[in-house]
Amino acid sequence: MAKSPEDQHPVKAFGWAATDSSGHLSPFKFSRRETGDEDVRFKVLYCGICHSDLHSIKNEWGNSTYPLLPGHEIVGEVTEVGGKVKKVKVGDKVGVGCLVGACHSCDSCVNNLENYCSKLILTYNSIDTDGTITYGGYSDHMVANQRYIVVFPDNMPLDAGAPLLCAGITVYSPLKYFGLAEPGKHIGVVGLGGLGHVAVKFAKALGAKVTAATGTLDGIIDTVSAVHPILPLISLLKSNGKLIMVGAPEKPLELPVFPLIMGRKTMAGSGIGGMKETQEMIDFAAKHNITADIEVISMDYVNTAMERLAKADVRYRFVIDIGKTLVATKP
Amino acid sequence: MAKSPEDQHPVKAFGWAATDSSGHLSPFKFSRRETGDEDVRFKVLYCGICHSDLHSIKNEWGNSTYPLLPGHEIVGEVTEVGGKVKKVKVGDKVGVGCLVGACHSCDSCVNNLENYCSKLILTYNSIDTDGTITYGGYSDHMVANQRYIVVFPDNMPLDAGAPLLCAGITVYSPLKYFGLAEPGKHIGVVGLGGLGHVAVKFAKALGAKVTAATGTLDGIIDTVSAVHPILPLISLLKSNGKLIMVGAPEKPLELPVFPLIMGRKTMAGSGIGGMKETQEMIDFAAKHNITADIEVISMDYVNTAMERLAKADVRYRFVIDIGKTLVATKP
Repeated sequence: MAKSPEDQHPVKAFGWAATDSSGHLSPFKFSRRETGDEDVRFKVLYCGICHSDLHSIKNEWGNSTYPLLPGHEIVGEVTEVGGKVKKVKVGDKVGVGCLVGACHSCDSCVNNLENYCSKLILTYNSIDTDGTITYGGYSDHMVANQRYIVVFPDNMPLDAGAPLLCAGITVYSPLKYFGLAEPGKHIGVVGLGGLGHVAVKFAKALGAKVTAATGTLDGIIDTVSAVHPILPLISLLKSNGKLIMVGAPEKPLELPVFPLIMGRKTMAGSGIGGMKETQEMIDFAAKHNITADIEVISMDYVNTAMERLAKADVRYRFVIDIGKTLVATKP
Repeated sequence: MAKSPEDQHPVKAFGWAATDSSGHLSPFKFSRRETGDEDVRFKVLYCGICHSDLHSIKNEWGNSTYPLLPGHEIVGEVTEVGGKVKKVKVGDKVGVGCLVGACHSCDSCVNNLENYCSKLILTYNSIDTDGTITYGGYSDHMVANQRYIVVFPDNMPLDAGAPLLCAGITVYSPLKYFGLAEPGKHIGVVGLGGLGHVAVKFAKALGAKVTAATGTLDGIIDTVSAVHPILPLISLLKSNGKLIMVGAPEKPLELPVFPLIMGRKTMAGSGIGGMKETQEMIDFAAKHNITADIEVISMDYVNTAMERLAKADVRYRFVIDIGKTLVATKP
């Protein structure tokens, strides 16, 4: 018989999870593995609420396994490191984003693009190498292979820096890869939510001129995750312009081909970023004082926060103060 | 009162044109301008039949002006050159493709991408700088600014080389721009028609491995001009793979965004190529013995050819023997 989440691993853990597609979150006891040679264990202090968390707890992508413990913008303080860990030491401030594992041998992994590995393991609702389900950051502590640990620079605030681990890298990576955020480039950002507001900050810091409406653009970062018309966006691009989709509407969009051909325009998708680039992004953000605009909430406010998030009633990211407020909810 | 096509210009000309959206082509008398300082005049010997010709004579894109005289894969022999023309001399073999004019001062033009100039003048069914309508290559002679004259290398056959002026550059340009046709790359070609069969030849000559069906592809050149599902094509791409659309379906396609994000995949459009690259393409084709597979027809067969083209009953391009067969049709 399969072991219960509380008995699968030797180290007791506690967090808030959804138990069905109502998406209601409530206290949940589970367990995590011991600290392996390559592992870093840390006490969770803050965890951002990503729209993906909301999609997942309500099973809106159709792949949720319950109990589902969300959270992939996780920041905390290192409490234990494995024997082979040189990257961080006890007391350091670190983060974990969307990824906790990949094959480490395919072309994607070798090129620091673990996020495109076909065997990637997500931080929650994914099957780990030992067959158990991964649980996210709405929890008291976290353990992960050091490859997936992002070192937080000293001047990066832990709360407003947390959303960078998903929202930040998701927009930073395509800005870099598609050559959009260079001095002299004029780019647009569509959707001013958790991703969009950070995209504006990164694009400016990278030297690009940023707009949200009209003009002739070198590129557009489209962060909208609902079905929406893209012809108006393609029309805003100049020749060779690039429309980069980082939001994931659940249904296909209508793609007019002629407007792409007239001007050799590109549409591309981009999904978060690899670990090397995630560290680069956090360091860049620290240097340029880029953080997310956040509303810090307590653990027991999480269900209300999800309701508000569904209505886009947040400027621009909720972050849960796990460190101060989780324990009080322990049954 | 507007002058008739026969009296608009000083030099008499003769060809075959459609007079309404039935698309039926018949003998048509018109006129062309005198040879200007920068102009090259040539006797038309061959003209390829592009699917765009069929769309245009039937007004399927909704922008046709009648009489409409099609043809933009035009090859012939120079009969007169203007005082400032150094590029070619009388007797040289030359071609004209889809373009006969552009602004020559915008970013696109300065970068040899006249094809993306917002003021580009197409070879037919376009408004010329003097306000008259342009007429294409199903005609006895042609006159064009030397910038739009493609020099035919000695070993390039005039008939089987003609389709390269549209079909050739349309696939050559994206293979180069998107970095698809390099040694070690594995690319796909969708649609084995006039464009597709030439794409296979160019991609092979450029060093890429080419397939038409399964596998994990670096890129796909999609030449299909009918509405078709693109999810299966996106699925054939590896991470960072590129799906390049050069056919222009008349209605929007369904674009699933998630499969683009998972693998940072690109979809882009590409429309023919600039004049510098068109000359490069013809020279490359001559060096590697690349031509189109053609069926040479006489002028009075053109309406039957259009019927067969609509049924995709051609392997793979019709070319009209203008030089030998046009005059006999003169009323």
